[in-house]
Amino acid sequence: MKTYKAHLIDTPVPDAFRFIENGYISVSDEGKVTYIGRTLPEQAGQVTDFGDRLLIPAFNDLHLHAPQYRNIGLAMDLELLPWLQRYTFPEEMKFANLDYARKIYTRFVHELWMQGTMRSAVFATIHLDATLLLADLFQQSGLGAYVGLVAMDRNAPNGLCGAKTEAFAGVNALDAKLGRKGRVRAIITPRFIPSCSEDMLTELGSLAQQTGLPVQSHLSENLHEIDWVHELEPDATCYGDAYNRYGLFGQTPTLMAHCCYTNDEEMQLMKQNGVCVVHCPTSNNNLASGMASVRRFLDNGIRVALGTDVSGGHYMSMLRVIQYAIQTSKLHYAQSKGKIPFLSLSEAFYLATKGGGEFFGKVGCFDIGNEFDALVIDDSYLNFDSYSLPERIERFIYIGDDRDIRHRFCAGNELPEPPQIH
Amino acid sequence: MKTYKAHLIDTPVPDAFRFIENGYISVSDEGKVTYIGRTLPEQAGQVTDFGDRLLIPAFNDLHLHAPQYRNIGLAMDLELLPWLQRYTFPEEMKFANLDYARKIYTRFVHELWMQGTMRSAVFATIHLDATLLLADLFQQSGLGAYVGLVAMDRNAPNGLCGAKTEAFAGVNALDAKLGRKGRVRAIITPRFIPSCSEDMLTELGSLAQQTGLPVQSHLSENLHEIDWVHELEPDATCYGDAYNRYGLFGQTPTLMAHCCYTNDEEMQLMKQNGVCVVHCPTSNNNLASGMASVRRFLDNGIRVALGTDVSGGHYMSMLRVIQYAIQTSKLHYAQSKGKIPFLSLSEAFYLATKGGGEFFGKVGCFDIGNEFDALVIDDSYLNFDSYSLPERIERFIYIGDDRDIRHRFCAGNELPEPPQIH
Repeated sequence: MKTYKAHLIDTPVPDAFRFIENGYISVSDEGKVTYIGRTLPEQAGQVTDFGDRLLIPAFNDLHLHAPQYRNIGLAMDLELLPWLQRYTFPEEMKFANLDYARKIYTRFVHELWMQGTMRSAVFATIHLDATLLLADLFQQSGLGAYVGLVAMDRNAPNGLCGAKTEAFAGVNALDAKLGRKGRVRAIITPRFIPSCSEDMLTELGSLAQQTGLPVQSHLSENLHEIDWVHELEPDATCYGDAYNRYGLFGQTPTLMAHCCYTNDEEMQLMKQNGVCVVHCPTSNNNLASGMASVRRFLDNGIRVALGTDVSGGHYMSMLRVIQYAIQTSKLHYAQSKGKIPFLSLSEAFYLATKGGGEFFGKVGCFDIGNEFDALVIDDSYLNFDSYSLPERIERFIYIGDDRDIRHRFCAGNELPEPPQIH
Repeated sequence: MKTYKAHLIDTPVPDAFRFIENGYISVSDEGKVTYIGRTLPEQAGQVTDFGDRLLIPAFNDLHLHAPQYRNIGLAMDLELLPWLQRYTFPEEMKFANLDYARKIYTRFVHELWMQGTMRSAVFATIHLDATLLLADLFQQSGLGAYVGLVAMDRNAPNGLCGAKTEAFAGVNALDAKLGRKGRVRAIITPRFIPSCSEDMLTELGSLAQQTGLPVQSHLSENLHEIDWVHELEPDATCYGDAYNRYGLFGQTPTLMAHCCYTNDEEMQLMKQNGVCVVHCPTSNNNLASGMASVRRFLDNGIRVALGTDVSGGHYMSMLRVIQYAIQTSKLHYAQSKGKIPFLSLSEAFYLATKGGGEFFGKVGCFDIGNEFDALVIDDSYLNFDSYSLPERIERFIYIGDDRDIRHRFCAGNELPEPPQIH
């Protein structure tokens, strides 16, 4: 048992922040929150006083590509499909080389830690050895992650097309190595419909059914992509249905990234099947994909998380994604002449913490029983004029950065800085 | 005479970066570029070798509000007009107090320096003493600036409404103190049409005519604002014409911020009068104003600069504004189904350097005869995989920040860090 004292700020519900000025939070030896309140509990264990600092839930990034780490901030002069062919696939081919994979993945895991992202859902590549290495690095760091061995067998360079049997065996090998009890686990990862043949999708659907493993993929990101999916899967009534036919659309817990152009039918299917949208506003801007309307998903009762989508997204901090989620929603608000309400700060913060955290269990806020995933924020250089706590969290979100994060906890453990360079 | 060696990167024209790997640039004692090239010139003076670092033009921020510095990252739950009334005007009232002004303006000038913004066009408040103090702090820092004593006499709290005679005398006092030879000068600053009566605008127009001083204001930012201007100035054919009738629209060099909803007539008038648009994409997003189309202005041959518009804008780095300018243009591209080309990286960088720099004379690139405004960038932590120079500048723009700026030059002088706290 340990207890921390600080200004506690979280969003158990999206509508408003909960502020506990000079509050206390106790964490069991199992890493679960056992107390939160304004007074020191009777059974407090060792008490650490963080003084005037803020203690907030850690961030959860539900969509990003580890092998694209080298390309962050690069190559954004093309839309999705030519961008994949020209920049992304050639980079991912390099991960056949385990030394290269170690170099990039070591930095990638370090950066997640640096940015305060304690849990993530990650695409690796089709290369099993490199993906096992990535999972290893996650385990060594203490960070939580769903690690996806990417499945693809068409419309990509030869080096990135694998056999369905390899995909099947690979995910099973990853799952066997990681198990289902730790914080790093396997996730079934068809890249997207254009990359996966009918055979491959059938195989992955069986795998999901047999293992119960979760699924992640891309959905309705770009208009050209959607046209292509219609050509490739002419019987599917919508892009989402193309996954659904194979049992890859909510039959097990499922993340679908982007959803910029989800129509009413797809929306209905997502709702019915409990599919979670991962909104990636930085990437949607950078690749000129368009503007997904988060409000529409929320109004339809669909679960929403946020993702950096590195390297379509140009920055690995969830702070930026919160900013862009709000700003994109304000463009919808402006274009609808005020009819579509924009996201409030607490709503967007909720999406970046609890919205994504729920995919990992009880993660993302400080309610009792939750895993203690938290960041200690020193915003003293921003707080030069007696700002209120609501002002301090807003300023940290908009103008703070990794420099302000002083301690990082995942499931109750304070995580030391992982190696940046192999 | 001094000579610097580094990788030189600038945009003399928008279409492409100029890269001079391991290049040399010589600067006269007057702070002007006298040589740029691949070899050490015969007359080099003292040579400083910046090794593998990048040397780029410094940034120019052509629209921001110094007294809103405290509110950066705050109060973005409202559109422009209620935002002014609820958050901005109350904050600006505090600048009647010179101690408060010194506290905020000291930090403001420090932050410009920190972010590598060597020249800016700044709105102060209606308070002459505080505005003189701001000008003083600029002069002490070595940064260049147009400093605007804000004129307003209606539709604001009493404490922010001044007499036209005060505005007239105030600008003259500022101009007399600063003169026209230094890098800090006065600029005539009607806040916007709704804040200025006919009498005030007439007075400021005469002032512009008599003094030749430049003008800055806001234009066509928000739909409610535009409706209001039509009510207040029913004879004006467009918002821009409301300034033009008073001689405040290009009769002297003129900056107009935002222009989200500039119609064809206003566009024509801007072109005819040589008015410069200041595009403020972060602010336009945050205040849900809308999406200004930079491409439309460029296609019409109108000069464009960029501005952070702090505190409508949530961050004072021009790097962010470059990112948002490109991203906003990509949303126009997406919504036009590819018909409106988005801004290239070099175009956006040009706007943030030479586009705005030209308002200050020969500023913003490294052509011979230009004032040497420059930043030395250490991107070594980003450059872990032998990136090319085009990749390095792109990564610095998208994922670099103030931490990477190692030296700052304005008009040939290396500027030391100004005090952050009074």
